[in-house]
Amino acid sequence: MVRRRSPSPTANTHPYCLPESALEALPEGTRSEVLRVLYGAPSEPLVIAGDASAAASQHKIELKGYKIGGAAIEHRRAPRVVKVAVVQNAIVAPTTATVDEQYEALERRIGQLVDVAGKGGANILCLQETWHCPFFMCTREKQPWCEFAEDPVTGRPTRFLQRKALEYNMVIVSPILERDEAHQDLIWNTAVVIGNHGNVIGKHRKVHIPRINDFNEANYYLEGPFEHPVFETEFGRIGINICYGRHHPLAWMLYACNGAEIIFNPSATVGALSEPMWPIEGRNAAIANSVFVACLNRVGTEVFPNAFTSGDGKPAHQDFGHFYGSSYVAAPNGSRTPGLSRTSDGVLIVECDLNMCRQVRDRWCFQMTGRYKDYAEALADFVKPDHKRHIVCDPLMPSSAAQ
Amino acid sequence: MVRRRSPSPTANTHPYCLPESALEALPEGTRSEVLRVLYGAPSEPLVIAGDASAAASQHKIELKGYKIGGAAIEHRRAPRVVKVAVVQNAIVAPTTATVDEQYEALERRIGQLVDVAGKGGANILCLQETWHCPFFMCTREKQPWCEFAEDPVTGRPTRFLQRKALEYNMVIVSPILERDEAHQDLIWNTAVVIGNHGNVIGKHRKVHIPRINDFNEANYYLEGPFEHPVFETEFGRIGINICYGRHHPLAWMLYACNGAEIIFNPSATVGALSEPMWPIEGRNAAIANSVFVACLNRVGTEVFPNAFTSGDGKPAHQDFGHFYGSSYVAAPNGSRTPGLSRTSDGVLIVECDLNMCRQVRDRWCFQMTGRYKDYAEALADFVKPDHKRHIVCDPLMPSSAAQ
Repeated sequence: MVRRRSPSPTANTHPYCLPESALEALPEGTRSEVLRVLYGAPSEPLVIAGDASAAASQHKIELKGYKIGGAAIEHRRAPRVVKVAVVQNAIVAPTTATVDEQYEALERRIGQLVDVAGKGGANILCLQETWHCPFFMCTREKQPWCEFAEDPVTGRPTRFLQRKALEYNMVIVSPILERDEAHQDLIWNTAVVIGNHGNVIGKHRKVHIPRINDFNEANYYLEGPFEHPVFETEFGRIGINICYGRHHPLAWMLYACNGAEIIFNPSATVGALSEPMWPIEGRNAAIANSVFVACLNRVGTEVFPNAFTSGDGKPAHQDFGHFYGSSYVAAPNGSRTPGLSRTSDGVLIVECDLNMCRQVRDRWCFQMTGRYKDYAEALADFVKPDHKRHIVCDPLMPSSAAQ
Repeated sequence: MVRRRSPSPTANTHPYCLPESALEALPEGTRSEVLRVLYGAPSEPLVIAGDASAAASQHKIELKGYKIGGAAIEHRRAPRVVKVAVVQNAIVAPTTATVDEQYEALERRIGQLVDVAGKGGANILCLQETWHCPFFMCTREKQPWCEFAEDPVTGRPTRFLQRKALEYNMVIVSPILERDEAHQDLIWNTAVVIGNHGNVIGKHRKVHIPRINDFNEANYYLEGPFEHPVFETEFGRIGINICYGRHHPLAWMLYACNGAEIIFNPSATVGALSEPMWPIEGRNAAIANSVFVACLNRVGTEVFPNAFTSGDGKPAHQDFGHFYGSSYVAAPNGSRTPGLSRTSDGVLIVECDLNMCRQVRDRWCFQMTGRYKDYAEALADFVKPDHKRHIVCDPLMPSSAAQ
């Protein structure tokens, strides 16, 4: 009832990481020019500790590392070089296994992936959205799925990752389904932020919930409180814009307004719907807000016991489609790293100097030229029930009332 | 003093339109898969009238046409299929020629380009930013450059394009420098919208002015009034987000809030600075706002009589860099057309069904899940002098005051 890697060689599950692996067939001069336009200033390979590579190889984990260059040496601030890492992975046990069996298989796998990131020297690591369960929201069934939800402080996922954070002196962002026992057992989609001393710094609940296709998330949890907190950690200030918030430019902006230097976008999204948007939205957010953005997505096809329909007129089926991975990091200067594969579990470690954020702001002046007060007034006006749009009508057009 | 097409085969002036021409070297299966991820659902070629192709060939104009598919047939609305076109071009006469000589050479060239679009059946055409003059703002000199500014109603550029609009039954967006004689000779960066009956429907002044590098535009004109009007024409509702507004997500959003279905981004931008952002920003705006977006940029390297420095510590020089063309159209469903070349004058004609905008809104629900009222309040709070950022500090980090 589960395939960890989709076996069929269809377009949806083409194995290569696009476009960089595919582009290897191009002549060198052409290839570097294409990549310059597609990805901006090239990321250099990052030298990764041998035991990280060995662990990755042992556990069949794709491990990629890059250095994003281009930050200047400043007179008054030392460089703030950090290694940001993301994990992408498939579920492990069949979805017919018990909830505990499924969780424990995932915990073991995540342990291997976190170990690779930790041995590779990652300072801040983000796991994918609801990493501790299959993405069952497509089914609209409640049992046994809601049982996966966990207390964000005392639950097993947090306790497990606190040990890992301490072991590797690493901040870990752990996106889970949160069981809120203190409020009548509500469920939230929550990112728990664990400090490098193993402490829980805080949590943030997903603000924008999708209402599309098989993302039936509104049946399981509500929009979190309208807030965009930034977590100040030993290695930098981070925000977490969970999954569907990726489509909302204002969501990204508000994390930046609160001081984020790195914004993570832990996601679970499938090819047919969102893949062409994937390289665009996170990277645009990095450019528009002069921050680093790390987008990560699960991989594989998850198959469920009972068939369900998708509101698209097609017959009932048992899977949601192929989660296409392709996790990447984008920089404030418009560049991005190559991505992880579309089909394999992987760890991406990216070294960057957080000083670049302010340097790019000083250079491009997007923040100085943004007209925030005017925007606020325009949006406040827009939501009024009697809002009149500013339309200048051609008086000569056939249907014009002015004619 | 002018090179219409940069002759040196450096990276900056690599001739191919990236990445699609370069990708022709890939095996077909790989190529189509790369393009699917890069560009979304493929645009079909558009059949273009023979006399348009002949005119393009005669005048050495690159002519490309595409159909953006994917709009559904609706029960209650007929399809609203329009042909949207953009022009990109280099200046013609040397920058040492008189202002009239330079303008007249440009008018002749633009006439050829507009004829190609008109014969090709374009319904709405946009010319590039300040098409009637070189992009002289890099020089910081005022003479003779300010003399290029024209009255938006009675000036030569408008009268010339009114005749063309009438001849081809075509809406034309004409971005010029506006001389505002009624207000003490102010200069604005303005898009004049000419209806398909040859009438001036209205104008819109650039809202966001760059403050970066050689874009010394703030020395020549100020930010226009904070407004994002939409022009209702016989062929659809259009907004014009001039050049640097491309970097501001809220600017795009406000045109969409006013009902735009197509937003043009007439630009003048050079490779070293902005090229990796170019394919991202306009396309993200199309996705985030469920509208069509047409981005267009001039081509070539413009050389000026007197050397100037660029605030980058490098020696004085006489050109601003290579304007890289690469004009393209992006659709609300995440797809985009291939672009025009990086180096040649060109016309891009794109057929699309404007019904797709609302269809994508109904499907993805970005507008329904956007929290505009909350955004307005958050931004109003952000601009307060005593605004406190929402930061959750790790109490265990060494520098924490909480320790």
